[in-house]
Amino acid sequence: MVGVEGPHLVEAALEANLRIEAILVSTSGQRHLDVLRSLVPDGTRLLRTSESLFEKVAATETPQGIAALVHRREWTFEDLARGTPLIVILAGLQDPGNVGTIIRAAEGLGASGVVTCAAPPRPGFESVGTSNPLAPKALRASAGAALRIPLLHGAQSSALLLQLRMTKIQTLAACPAESPSSANRGNPAESLPALHKPWEVDWTVPSAIWIGNEGAGLPLEIVRSADGRVTIPHATTGPSAMESLNAGAAAAVLLYEAARQRGILA
Amino acid sequence: MVGVEGPHLVEAALEANLRIEAILVSTSGQRHLDVLRSLVPDGTRLLRTSESLFEKVAATETPQGIAALVHRREWTFEDLARGTPLIVILAGLQDPGNVGTIIRAAEGLGASGVVTCAAPPRPGFESVGTSNPLAPKALRASAGAALRIPLLHGAQSSALLLQLRMTKIQTLAACPAESPSSANRGNPAESLPALHKPWEVDWTVPSAIWIGNEGAGLPLEIVRSADGRVTIPHATTGPSAMESLNAGAAAAVLLYEAARQRGILA
Repeated sequence: MVGVEGPHLVEAALEANLRIEAILVSTSGQRHLDVLRSLVPDGTRLLRTSESLFEKVAATETPQGIAALVHRREWTFEDLARGTPLIVILAGLQDPGNVGTIIRAAEGLGASGVVTCAAPPRPGFESVGTSNPLAPKALRASAGAALRIPLLHGAQSSALLLQLRMTKIQTLAACPAESPSSANRGNPAESLPALHKPWEVDWTVPSAIWIGNEGAGLPLEIVRSADGRVTIPHATTGPSAMESLNAGAAAAVLLYEAARQRGILA
Repeated sequence: MVGVEGPHLVEAALEANLRIEAILVSTSGQRHLDVLRSLVPDGTRLLRTSESLFEKVAATETPQGIAALVHRREWTFEDLARGTPLIVILAGLQDPGNVGTIIRAAEGLGASGVVTCAAPPRPGFESVGTSNPLAPKALRASAGAALRIPLLHGAQSSALLLQLRMTKIQTLAACPAESPSSANRGNPAESLPALHKPWEVDWTVPSAIWIGNEGAGLPLEIVRSADGRVTIPHATTGPSAMESLNAGAAAAVLLYEAARQRGILA
């Protein structure tokens, strides 16, 4: 069950035909309910509350007097892998705003689905646990996309790796651009998958893109398992000391490149 | 004068050779100062504070015991317009996180500078006022880029329009993708600049891109004044009811397309 708050998200839940457990409305929220009335299925439970009670249960700072308790849709890996899939896998993202931004971009740029990884106590995979995409802040940042796009929440990354291999989906690991200093670090004998610029990747085949933690990136185990690494290089005109893009912006750029190649931007 | 807080931003200010008025350090911040010591110019004023006093002046929730008061660099329009400029103009962005994210992307993807507009009391331009890019939250979201990239803060949009015209810089207005319903709205006789997809724009000429408010977009006056409109279309595979990207992600996509065409991503 997911709590969605505010007229925009309640509207998104209604339009997505999610099963509604109840709609909670305060006096000030009545006007929003009036607008949405035609979308509310007959027989939906309406719970009327006082303003002060609503404010106590609200997760937002400026509650707008309307919320709904909805049943999330259950998706399977097959739902995400339909057609020529482009699956976004979030492994280790801590910031709910980034998680929501990426889900919004995934929907808008035509990805087939999003997976968020759970954190299992297995060596090499400890750091893949990702912020809940249906928690209030992530849901708001997604502008409701998390209620619509096929979404697997809390997947085991080891099982996921196996499914991707079995379904012959090309896997790419999003990696930060290497600065001249970091390029010399690490074991030079260690072989990592080939590093590509976004436009060098063939995104027209079934693909999945792993996006890692804002600071630490992806676990080495996952990078090693990928068919290729993809990086958005630094502009040669600027300083290259820092990550040039935050996780949400970087994901949007990669998804744009994929959508452009696929010719699905109308 | 700008207050920068935390070891990363203090380091960014030192590396950018900004003039330091003072460095504020608490007992717990001493270890950060030790690391940065070689970057601190001789004769820099060090103010030692107690932990509790530092926490009172800190803008962050988990202060790290080090901050600096620095003189911001004064930039002119000419600094931003050097070479083949790509200028990002923020007009009406309210969210400091978006402002910082865009400045970070502008630096990383090789834009020549960023302008943030002030809000003048002039009809048609009321809504261009933009969140302060050097305020704590925006500065953090920029990962320090706001201390390095040529930045005009609080520009008058009318004067800016004139400068862009005089310097023959192509101006583009970033516009949301039109949903089928909104496309029919408005006065059909009204002529707006031609609408382009990102890859249809020639970004290799001197260019400036206007980015508007997260919800309301750009004022019509500014859209009308532009040489062209540019939009990131919705994927044809998904719902088109909502804005597909947030302002930060959309700006990153446009800057990536420009950088790709310019061949400056190493």
